[in-house]
Amino acid sequence: MIRLNCDLGESYGRWQLADEAAVMPTIDMANIACGFHAGDPLTLSRTLRLAKAHGVAVGAHPGYPDLLGFGRRSIPLSSEELRSLFLYQIGALRALAWAEGIELEYVKPHGALYNDMMCNEGIFLTLVEALADYDPSLKLMILASATAERYAKLAEKRGIGLLREFFADRAYTESCELMPRSETGAVLHDPEAVLKQVQRAVEEGVVLTPSGARIPVEFETICVHGDNPEAVELTRSIHRLLHPEPSA
Amino acid sequence: MIRLNCDLGESYGRWQLADEAAVMPTIDMANIACGFHAGDPLTLSRTLRLAKAHGVAVGAHPGYPDLLGFGRRSIPLSSEELRSLFLYQIGALRALAWAEGIELEYVKPHGALYNDMMCNEGIFLTLVEALADYDPSLKLMILASATAERYAKLAEKRGIGLLREFFADRAYTESCELMPRSETGAVLHDPEAVLKQVQRAVEEGVVLTPSGARIPVEFETICVHGDNPEAVELTRSIHRLLHPEPSA
Amino acid sequence: MIRLNCDLGESYGRWQLADEAAVMPTIDMANIACGFHAGDPLTLSRTLRLAKAHGVAVGAHPGYPDLLGFGRRSIPLSSEELRSLFLYQIGALRALAWAEGIELEYVKPHGALYNDMMCNEGIFLTLVEALADYDPSLKLMILASATAERYAKLAEKRGIGLLREFFADRAYTESCELMPRSETGAVLHDPEAVLKQVQRAVEEGVVLTPSGARIPVEFETICVHGDNPEAVELTRSIHRLLHPEPSA
Amino acid sequence: MIRLNCDLGESYGRWQLADEAAVMPTIDMANIACGFHAGDPLTLSRTLRLAKAHGVAVGAHPGYPDLLGFGRRSIPLSSEELRSLFLYQIGALRALAWAEGIELEYVKPHGALYNDMMCNEGIFLTLVEALADYDPSLKLMILASATAERYAKLAEKRGIGLLREFFADRAYTESCELMPRSETGAVLHDPEAVLKQVQRAVEEGVVLTPSGARIPVEFETICVHGDNPEAVELTRSIHRLLHPEPSA
Repeated sequence: MIRLNCDLGESYGRWQLADEAAVMPTIDMANIACGFHAGDPLTLSRTLRLAKAHGVAVGAHPGYPDLLGFGRRSIPLSSEELRSLFLYQIGALRALAWAEGIELEYVKPHGALYNDMMCNEGIFLTLVEALADYDPSLKLMILASATAERYAKLAEKRGIGLLREFFADRAYTESCELMPRSETGAVLHDPEAVLKQVQRAVEEGVVLTPSGARIPVEFETICVHGDNPEAVELTRSIHRLLHPEPSA
Repeated sequence: MIRLNCDLGESYGRWQLADEAAVMPTIDMANIACGFHAGDPLTLSRTLRLAKAHGVAVGAHPGYPDLLGFGRRSIPLSSEELRSLFLYQIGALRALAWAEGIELEYVKPHGALYNDMMCNEGIFLTLVEALADYDPSLKLMILASATAERYAKLAEKRGIGLLREFFADRAYTESCELMPRSETGAVLHDPEAVLKQVQRAVEEGVVLTPSGARIPVEFETICVHGDNPEAVELTRSIHRLLHPEPSA
Repeated sequence: MIRLNCDLGESYGRWQLADEAAVMPTIDMANIACGFHAGDPLTLSRTLRLAKAHGVAVGAHPGYPDLLGFGRRSIPLSSEELRSLFLYQIGALRALAWAEGIELEYVKPHGALYNDMMCNEGIFLTLVEALADYDPSLKLMILASATAERYAKLAEKRGIGLLREFFADRAYTESCELMPRSETGAVLHDPEAVLKQVQRAVEEGVVLTPSGARIPVEFETICVHGDNPEAVELTRSIHRLLHPEPSA
Repeated sequence: MIRLNCDLGESYGRWQLADEAAVMPTIDMANIACGFHAGDPLTLSRTLRLAKAHGVAVGAHPGYPDLLGFGRRSIPLSSEELRSLFLYQIGALRALAWAEGIELEYVKPHGALYNDMMCNEGIFLTLVEALADYDPSLKLMILASATAERYAKLAEKRGIGLLREFFADRAYTESCELMPRSETGAVLHDPEAVLKQVQRAVEEGVVLTPSGARIPVEFETICVHGDNPEAVELTRSIHRLLHPEPSA
């Protein structure tokens, strides 16, 4: 079963992001921020409780130590620093999860750290090895792309399972990478087009490039957004498409 | 057996505190900062590794979120906020400990949070209940004082064990509380006087007040300092006094 | 002429607060955050530019060093620490203002620092003396209340001018202090009631207490809110009431 | 007259760096941190007071917003963000300086920002234009190198004066750039060698490369270190060499 994942827990003190009560019932997996790019401890506890109430699986969503940049800027770190920052955040969220009676299922790096992991094998290996040393039962979420197959072999050697994610609203290149945001058409804004891309990916296992090529793509989860009312509406539609018979 | 505990892991990036390689062999328990008042993730990993190398037991040393004030200023927090901040820090350190193959044994609140816990039963209960919900195998360290007996009953009800600590270099009042630092004689500066106070407490189970009264005191651990060369020398002497035959 | 003041510049990186383009044309004075409780440098520059475009006077709005608590928690500080934190923030905003070709007119402490200043004469004097040493041309904004007269004398001795502000939507006690938020009726939610209170204060120089007493009140400015669409609508109404003939 | 400059004000709360009382009498110019990579407001006030007591000129030493990395990591910023961060820090320090009755003379970017400024003309221009808009009386300190001449022309066009600095203890390449720290011999550790390099640069206007080439170098100031006792001793020697007859 393909599951929907969404970034949550991204408020910070007075500053609120996303109507989490509206989003949570429409998703399957919540990637919860861990305090370094967003998410103060109280926010995390509340998001965890909400996830539990809706039976949503929970993953840690650690980022670079950069509140001001929301984790969207690459911070140069030694491998040893990165490993420590990464585990610190996962452990912090996990303690809050345990106190609510839930367990983390996976880890999805955030923002610039996610991009750096996909572009830089050394960074990917640092994260995989950190998980292997800490707790190999945690899965690592990566981009369903040309890189995924190679990464899966590297992770398997260290006993770490991967979750591959597909982006509902991003255009793909012929080598099955995300089209850079700087190019026109990189982000699909039309809800119809997004739904169609999801349907094609789920039912036929392919994504169409802007030039019309059909590229095969394999994934376990689809990333959706929840930070504005239109996004929530679209997420609800994708959720209905994936789970035709609601569990209720 | 009475054990020595010491606050460590209090460096932050470029700023180093304590010669940890010198201190670690002289203590039994390391209270390791958790990043909110001191201790970046890399510092914590290194201190954990050092503790493991010397067979030193490890506890989390969480504090108020206040790097600039080093956790020595009371920050007003709701019970829900405090609970989240507290567990966040413990979990963060614990993940780093697990990755080094060690387990936390206990939690000792730091600075103003420690004082607030001892003066305010509500804060004590918030911490105890957080541990009970998170992991009741973790012990909580408190001040060996007139308050300790009452606190022990409250903790026991929630299934949390306590560790009571005695301060080697602080003067005590007749009601077995620490003499406030604002009063003269509150801190013992003479190493001989400190050693004598430790010896009397360990061998006779009493502490002398400045007026000469003998007050009974019970404890499992003694708090020592490691942030200057003289402190390390004194710690070494106390360690010899407590453990006459070195394990080597 | 009575002028309207409003807290702005309170976004931080990814987290946006208030539709400043909508609020700015409806006010006379912008109290701009200075980075410690809210407001990153880029946010401040943009808010300053917007204030200039609308001919709005600009004041610094410094707070306690507490992003997570949005400056709403009292942080215990020595007088020397407070003085430094206060001037640091004012100077930071002022440099950004100069680079836009604007000058600061006044300083209004934020949140818990504002409350502490009004309740604690020592804190008030620390702020006044800091301004006197730094630049006595800057005015200090305080609450129009029973305390204001005494404070005005203290400030005058040090050569610092005050601006007294009236709160459009807060109930007042018979001693002309704000009714604590914990009491029912402390905040006026009905726009009609708010407008009436403003009109009475401006035209008759009095405020009605909940029990019906008429308390005299003197002020140079009225504080309004801009962080939601209803607030902006109300601000616009108060602005029309105060400035019947628009400058355009 | 060639003057000695030194980075100071780099403590942060509990964490102290450098014995500033020992260093200050041996230097001519203090580059004072501004709170983003180091230096809390109280620290800055104290360092400013000490500089005034010793008649030492004062410059702002702004860095990237990165306490944990001590400003030694490049943080990717838009030109508009960099401009705001830069002026924010200068203004903050300047207000504290004014309150002590001193004026800033210059600005020296710190760490990674300094390196980025020297390698990236766009960053240099952002800083120069920020100063031009804010206050063109402030000078900008740069590395005395092959780049300096070109930069001087660019700065002159915007009305900004430069101060070129020579590094007492760094090896230079034949194109008069600093030898990268990664190469052996990049840093001179022998005090005699450092003194000789300073003497040659001051008296003959040249620096010797490791291969023996004599490279001409022009500068107004020499950068020295003050963060350990040996460094202070060396600084004192260089100071005697530059100022044979003490001003007292």
